[in-house]
Amino acid sequence: MQLGVCYYPEHWNPNRWAIDAQQMRSIGLEIVRIAEFSWQKIEPVEGNYQWDWLDTAIETLSAAGLKLILGTPTATPPPWLCQQYPEILPVDALGHTRHYGSRRHYCPNSPAYHQHSQRIVQALAERYGHDSRVIGWQIDNEFGDHDTARCYCQHCTHAYQAWLKTRYGTLETLNEAWGAVFWSQSYTDWAQIRLPNLTVVNPNPSAVLDYYRFASDSVVNYQKLQLDLLRQLAPSHFVTTNLLGSYHDLDYHKLAQGLDFVSWDSYPTGYTETHGHRLYPPGERPQFAFDVGDPYVIGFCHALTYGLLRRPFWIMEQQIGNVNWTDYNTGVRPGTPRLWSWHAAGHGADVVVFFRWRACLFAQEQYHSGVLNHAAEPALGWDEILSLQAEQAELKQFTAQPPTAKVALLLDYENLWAIQLQPHRKEFTYLRHLFVWYCALQALAIPVEIVAHRADFSQFQCVIAPTLHINDDGLAERLQAFAAQGGQVVVGIRSGFKTESNRVTDAPLPGVYRTLLGSKVQAWSSLPPQVQCALESASPAAAGLHIAEPAGQWVESLHSETSQVLLTYASGLYSGKAALTCQAHGSGNAYTFGWYPSVGQARTFLAWLAERHAMPRLVEALPYGVFATQRGAQTLLLNFLDTPQDVEVGGRRHSLAARDVKVV
Amino acid sequence: MQLGVCYYPEHWNPNRWAIDAQQMRSIGLEIVRIAEFSWQKIEPVEGNYQWDWLDTAIETLSAAGLKLILGTPTATPPPWLCQQYPEILPVDALGHTRHYGSRRHYCPNSPAYHQHSQRIVQALAERYGHDSRVIGWQIDNEFGDHDTARCYCQHCTHAYQAWLKTRYGTLETLNEAWGAVFWSQSYTDWAQIRLPNLTVVNPNPSAVLDYYRFASDSVVNYQKLQLDLLRQLAPSHFVTTNLLGSYHDLDYHKLAQGLDFVSWDSYPTGYTETHGHRLYPPGERPQFAFDVGDPYVIGFCHALTYGLLRRPFWIMEQQIGNVNWTDYNTGVRPGTPRLWSWHAAGHGADVVVFFRWRACLFAQEQYHSGVLNHAAEPALGWDEILSLQAEQAELKQFTAQPPTAKVALLLDYENLWAIQLQPHRKEFTYLRHLFVWYCALQALAIPVEIVAHRADFSQFQCVIAPTLHINDDGLAERLQAFAAQGGQVVVGIRSGFKTESNRVTDAPLPGVYRTLLGSKVQAWSSLPPQVQCALESASPAAAGLHIAEPAGQWVESLHSETSQVLLTYASGLYSGKAALTCQAHGSGNAYTFGWYPSVGQARTFLAWLAERHAMPRLVEALPYGVFATQRGAQTLLLNFLDTPQDVEVGGRRHSLAARDVKVV
Amino acid sequence: MQLGVCYYPEHWNPNRWAIDAQQMRSIGLEIVRIAEFSWQKIEPVEGNYQWDWLDTAIETLSAAGLKLILGTPTATPPPWLCQQYPEILPVDALGHTRHYGSRRHYCPNSPAYHQHSQRIVQALAERYGHDSRVIGWQIDNEFGDHDTARCYCQHCTHAYQAWLKTRYGTLETLNEAWGAVFWSQSYTDWAQIRLPNLTVVNPNPSAVLDYYRFASDSVVNYQKLQLDLLRQLAPSHFVTTNLLGSYHDLDYHKLAQGLDFVSWDSYPTGYTETHGHRLYPPGERPQFAFDVGDPYVIGFCHALTYGLLRRPFWIMEQQIGNVNWTDYNTGVRPGTPRLWSWHAAGHGADVVVFFRWRACLFAQEQYHSGVLNHAAEPALGWDEILSLQAEQAELKQFTAQPPTAKVALLLDYENLWAIQLQPHRKEFTYLRHLFVWYCALQALAIPVEIVAHRADFSQFQCVIAPTLHINDDGLAERLQAFAAQGGQVVVGIRSGFKTESNRVTDAPLPGVYRTLLGSKVQAWSSLPPQVQCALESASPAAAGLHIAEPAGQWVESLHSETSQVLLTYASGLYSGKAALTCQAHGSGNAYTFGWYPSVGQARTFLAWLAERHAMPRLVEALPYGVFATQRGAQTLLLNFLDTPQDVEVGGRRHSLAARDVKVV
Repeated sequence: MQLGVCYYPEHWNPNRWAIDAQQMRSIGLEIVRIAEFSWQKIEPVEGNYQWDWLDTAIETLSAAGLKLILGTPTATPPPWLCQQYPEILPVDALGHTRHYGSRRHYCPNSPAYHQHSQRIVQALAERYGHDSRVIGWQIDNEFGDHDTARCYCQHCTHAYQAWLKTRYGTLETLNEAWGAVFWSQSYTDWAQIRLPNLTVVNPNPSAVLDYYRFASDSVVNYQKLQLDLLRQLAPSHFVTTNLLGSYHDLDYHKLAQGLDFVSWDSYPTGYTETHGHRLYPPGERPQFAFDVGDPYVIGFCHALTYGLLRRPFWIMEQQIGNVNWTDYNTGVRPGTPRLWSWHAAGHGADVVVFFRWRACLFAQEQYHSGVLNHAAEPALGWDEILSLQAEQAELKQFTAQPPTAKVALLLDYENLWAIQLQPHRKEFTYLRHLFVWYCALQALAIPVEIVAHRADFSQFQCVIAPTLHINDDGLAERLQAFAAQGGQVVVGIRSGFKTESNRVTDAPLPGVYRTLLGSKVQAWSSLPPQVQCALESASPAAAGLHIAEPAGQWVESLHSETSQVLLTYASGLYSGKAALTCQAHGSGNAYTFGWYPSVGQARTFLAWLAERHAMPRLVEALPYGVFATQRGAQTLLLNFLDTPQDVEVGGRRHSLAARDVKVV
Repeated sequence: MQLGVCYYPEHWNPNRWAIDAQQMRSIGLEIVRIAEFSWQKIEPVEGNYQWDWLDTAIETLSAAGLKLILGTPTATPPPWLCQQYPEILPVDALGHTRHYGSRRHYCPNSPAYHQHSQRIVQALAERYGHDSRVIGWQIDNEFGDHDTARCYCQHCTHAYQAWLKTRYGTLETLNEAWGAVFWSQSYTDWAQIRLPNLTVVNPNPSAVLDYYRFASDSVVNYQKLQLDLLRQLAPSHFVTTNLLGSYHDLDYHKLAQGLDFVSWDSYPTGYTETHGHRLYPPGERPQFAFDVGDPYVIGFCHALTYGLLRRPFWIMEQQIGNVNWTDYNTGVRPGTPRLWSWHAAGHGADVVVFFRWRACLFAQEQYHSGVLNHAAEPALGWDEILSLQAEQAELKQFTAQPPTAKVALLLDYENLWAIQLQPHRKEFTYLRHLFVWYCALQALAIPVEIVAHRADFSQFQCVIAPTLHINDDGLAERLQAFAAQGGQVVVGIRSGFKTESNRVTDAPLPGVYRTLLGSKVQAWSSLPPQVQCALESASPAAAGLHIAEPAGQWVESLHSETSQVLLTYASGLYSGKAALTCQAHGSGNAYTFGWYPSVGQARTFLAWLAERHAMPRLVEALPYGVFATQRGAQTLLLNFLDTPQDVEVGGRRHSLAARDVKVV
Repeated sequence: MQLGVCYYPEHWNPNRWAIDAQQMRSIGLEIVRIAEFSWQKIEPVEGNYQWDWLDTAIETLSAAGLKLILGTPTATPPPWLCQQYPEILPVDALGHTRHYGSRRHYCPNSPAYHQHSQRIVQALAERYGHDSRVIGWQIDNEFGDHDTARCYCQHCTHAYQAWLKTRYGTLETLNEAWGAVFWSQSYTDWAQIRLPNLTVVNPNPSAVLDYYRFASDSVVNYQKLQLDLLRQLAPSHFVTTNLLGSYHDLDYHKLAQGLDFVSWDSYPTGYTETHGHRLYPPGERPQFAFDVGDPYVIGFCHALTYGLLRRPFWIMEQQIGNVNWTDYNTGVRPGTPRLWSWHAAGHGADVVVFFRWRACLFAQEQYHSGVLNHAAEPALGWDEILSLQAEQAELKQFTAQPPTAKVALLLDYENLWAIQLQPHRKEFTYLRHLFVWYCALQALAIPVEIVAHRADFSQFQCVIAPTLHINDDGLAERLQAFAAQGGQVVVGIRSGFKTESNRVTDAPLPGVYRTLLGSKVQAWSSLPPQVQCALESASPAAAGLHIAEPAGQWVESLHSETSQVLLTYASGLYSGKAALTCQAHGSGNAYTFGWYPSVGQARTFLAWLAERHAMPRLVEALPYGVFATQRGAQTLLLNFLDTPQDVEVGGRRHSLAARDVKVV
């Protein structure tokens, strides 16, 4: 594993650069990322490029032994550009122009912005594309952050119309795909099609799903414009971009395509505070040591990021002290950044780049910590990096092999969006549903990959799809083939409901997955909070599977057609009907979950399944607060509590200090 | 009672129409409503009418034995119309244009929209106005829904100025009526008068009340434009519109005038979930079986709808499974839609039209259930309709007579708006105050009509006016005459406070009601949540009236002028002052309530009053969860719980199964 | 002390004026404020002044023996003015124009509005500037109320650019001061600088602090335009304006400069209900009698207002019954307005003007009470004023001397804004932090002045600065000099962090206060709610100082350089590090608080400090609910509870009735 740091030479007096560079090396940092917000510094006046400062910065850092990553600076168009070309500014869903003065103030479909982005990236790549001091490039920065994946400007309106014309060919096809006859909204002219904002009440969900696809494609295309240039002008450098964990306004599977690897920006306390509620049910969140964030949430993001290209990734920004963008911005204690770095490594990170070298003296991120504090004195992170440096041998050995997993969890952004547009039940989100299964797997110490629907399943023993909401014939066939070869498939509620264009299928549910699952959904219901349905075993085949907690939130009444009923509802709307079925295919099985499971229920089921099918668990009995990950044959144990924990692995007892890690 | 269903032939392949029609008839449906959102299908290009599909649909449905209701499709102007005449689009209070893409995207004062509405309604009425397969018309759909009663566009500004000119004649009169001298806002030019939005702080409440009146009148006028055409072109058909229960941005008393009858769209689970909090105090709501909604809320809406024209009404859309527009969209169990249909009948519905025939495969209402599910299989509602069909004889007999009531509850939209504009206390609303009295009457099994201020009171024994906020001389006189002839009048707090133009009267309170009530209000106070004032009996005339619960929220200090004091405050701000008085008039009385009552307090008082004046109660001791209504001489008992209940009526014990009904 | 009342002759029939005036005098009122919203009445058409009504009103009131204050009517530009000069209207942060129809609908930087304001003030001052019936003027009304201190219109954009040019001279200086290099936002043209609204994410905090300064200066300049005119045309009249207590979008220290005295509008129940949560931690608020408001909150506002010019002030509007602008608008009982008036006197008010004479019959303030009710009958306030009249001798004697205090609490609006822009912790506000110390002092009966940073400290024994956030060399020196002469200085967390331009200092913390405090801040942390750090005594010098409650919210790790450590952290992030230090200077000391104190902790510390340094306390053991203030040698005791309280002062026992006062 290599360590790096984010650095902004333009923020500091050039006479600090050499000192900073020397200090970075002195604590073992090898990589430095620069320049990703420096457009104005490179080009203060249109066409007038200022390379001196950047040449010097690169030379100074390189001279100290650091390898450089350059960010393209397109996340921050300078004021002069916005003043001269105001048409590049994005528009929000209420129709207000989003102005410059911070960052990400551009529309990804603006022709003028395409032209200027091309110009600045070309200038940079022409100058440094063959520079061996530079090892790679980061395109833009955190695409979509600050709600910028979706723009509602006139450029986007026209681009959306064109995108739809390409997708549907004729208005007749589009009107049919969208069911536009509903509420008399059929179109007779492409120019009539609006972006789906500012309607009196909710717009057509087929139109919105297409708009989400279009908006995501717009960013993917915008990235491709830069990627193509870099491939051409910097052929020996790697190219990546930095993502945002469980962010989902962009189809990360598409965005990752063509990159050498992906990276993400990991801020465990910040991310847990601001995004945790999007993964946990409202009001529920487990407690760990106060300054570590939530290892389920961060582990999920690591796993999701790994699965985008199914190869090791980078942490492009790793929190190294407090952040500045949450409600409490909790202070961090010694030991915690080291724990985070190991945790990242455990899930497949090969490089960890800390954010940032020195706390900034000005502007929006003043309160964000750095390895050095504002006064240039070593802050908490300094010793953390030294700790990691001291255990580099162990780290390198541990990260020599990639993570391994025999269980796949399926993730698909279009399915996610379709559920998001019509959750039908207040707290229902695709990611929460996925996260239930992720947490259950983590709690059982079963390694898991989070992969796309189109992934090759051959390495897995088990594929879990909490919801296959949109019908996909090919996927149904591939899952059946996977089962036939001995795989275990688990499919949950709301499956087979939608067509590709976000209409409801007119086939009985679960649509194209009916043969795979051997069960028909006869009825389904959303339940208010207080209503629950007891479950009971229905067959000797369910021996050992005891789910005492009743089903809630969402229940489906299953009718076994060719499957075996494992559990039935013992009370409630569907009393006596099947709740869990199993369809044999060759040497494998396809299980149908008829209700929205809790983590406890999913865990009980998975433990039963793992035992039945000899699926490996890293640790048999993981104490609360301890997590386990695997790379190659090595298991990493991490303790996220403030109290020591004992863990038995393979018959041997290991003691973990508070917030400590151990490779076993 | 007749049963019907809503159908959208344009949503389905024409080869399904005959099958659907035959199935409808097979389960006993007699009526079908169509076409209310089909403008684009009828007129896909301006002036180019396509009648074939509609002719065929009508013929197919009629041929199966169904009677047709046609909706005018003006709730959904097609995209081509919005593209060509963007001036028809409404503007919200923040000044944003509300665009097409859903429904109700029109300004009721747009001259262009008047013209096009006239055109499409005329075309429809000319074609089907004398068609005997059609029995009637529904104008538009759910006027005002999605916050569309009030528009803030330029057409509305000009129309408002004209409306004010008609109302006030001169600016001097208007300035005086509004007290515009306050904060220097007197007008010297009609063009200076703005709609009351986007002001720095709250606008003049007289201006806003006039704006609410104007906005309501605008919709009434817009409806009249269609109504006049239909009367002329379809003279033998009935004309109605479908309302929204306790919705109150429109003056339903004015909107109902001229219609043959009114109808409303009853979604008990949905309506309870989204509107219940507008009727109950925050955080308080009684519990019933989880899938029945709230019978107080829905009963209130039925009663309110009945009272608009004081004649039986229709349910134009009756929920038949889950809805799709609330937080939880609770699943519904067998038996519940039947219970709802009987409940509607019990309050005066003569026809119940279920929404909708088959669950829609596309667009905004995909998750809404139908009698058939998406796959065209019978869903829950199928058997419900069969159950009702099986008891048609009993239903017809029960609905042969109209509901009867000896108690009137007064409702007035202008009084409601005046309170809404200046509630003076956070949770104070006119409807909550009214609903307290409604619930108390229901709990006592005392039938009640909710009637307008101008209603003829002669059929009643008792008239309850929770608040006569605006002074109305004629009403004061009519109530006094009613009392003089033996009637009991109950009048509550905040009465006589306002003038017609929403100023405060300069007369002592309760203004013009002072002679009627025989008491003067010496002072009044809003109370914070924790402050309460005990009540105690003040006279032998109050014998039997024990109100142990102290008064809270709002108290008025009454001074008896000619009345008798029944209760006094025993603690708090007005300790020793009168809290409840009784003024005799001839053989009747006028009671003044000095505080905001709880349901329990109102119930105690009404039980005392009913006993004192021999007011009939359908059941002496109604168990919690059981409701009773009356049509003619028949009493309907309904059990909204999941447990059986025993009810004694006239000395005879009746057993009601869970969610069951019984006519006794 | 003198009593007055607010009166609006234009709201009433002129035949009431003489009656009203006579009644005012009959209950002892001496002063009447008029005309502050009467522009339209004075000038109904541009240039056409109508003086008759105002001449008559002044004559009528004066003839009855009342002295007049005239308000300039610029808070309410009439409709005709807005219609002819729409460019005067302000724009909100979302870019929406804020329209006329209520009040304060003007931009303080509008050239047209400057011109018309000048015109109307000049006309008024020319007519009444030498009129001896008039004693003084109130400029405008409640500057900044309804969020009007900050406007986002084009006039403001240009004025802001000009203001910045004056402040920084060159763009290079500005870019450096703002750290505009961050996110590439350096400016190359003054015209590129936008107001800091509508950015994609939070704007640069240096730009925003400058915008806050600019916006405040804009209002100060606008006031000065009027003040200069009045000084010239009404040289023998006083000039004041009416402020809003703890309102802080304007720099009240600057706004007060040049006025003869300041006044504020005191609505204890209303202000407590709407602003209390800005001073107390969320969810915490002490309880008093239900109708008195919160004496800590109102006392704080009195003290803050007194401190603006460090001289007695007026209550320009004193609540006299219920208000109409809060959630509950609690009714008020006899005795309470008298208590409020004494409370104001106790904190330095010399005149109390009640709002308003008679409850208004129309427009926005109909539900606001007056001395007379709507029907012109005496309301609650009538007898209150008579009570005060009866004790005028005692009141006059008590108010003959100004308040005295030996403790100063420092307040600075720029420091407040800097914290507001980057609180770093959810509930952290500058005012809450200040209020903790204020409450502790009040609970100990230690009189306190709230003074500006630039105040002369010579009269004080102790100066408390909860946060000296922005580095200020001169202040550091003055505090050190104050200590050297025997003063006690207390400085809290987050001090020395910022530069004048709202960057972070690159010096070790606490920046320029390091010598004064003798301690260096080695690290600091915001803490989430559940995390706490125990405190323990570290030195014999801390004898008697026991703080059992642990530190929370925010902790700083202090390193004593020349100071003595009094307390250390006994657990948590900084266990073993210093938490409270004391630096001797000459005969005085400078204490450094390392954590965010609770009221209890501050009280324990202050009691210890007061005992150690013989700082006077008015009462040794103040019962909960009783407050004490001092003017000259007289102590005023006030009981804000509904139960009688006994207080021992100087060895003598005093009994206070419920909601009663006593001078001892």
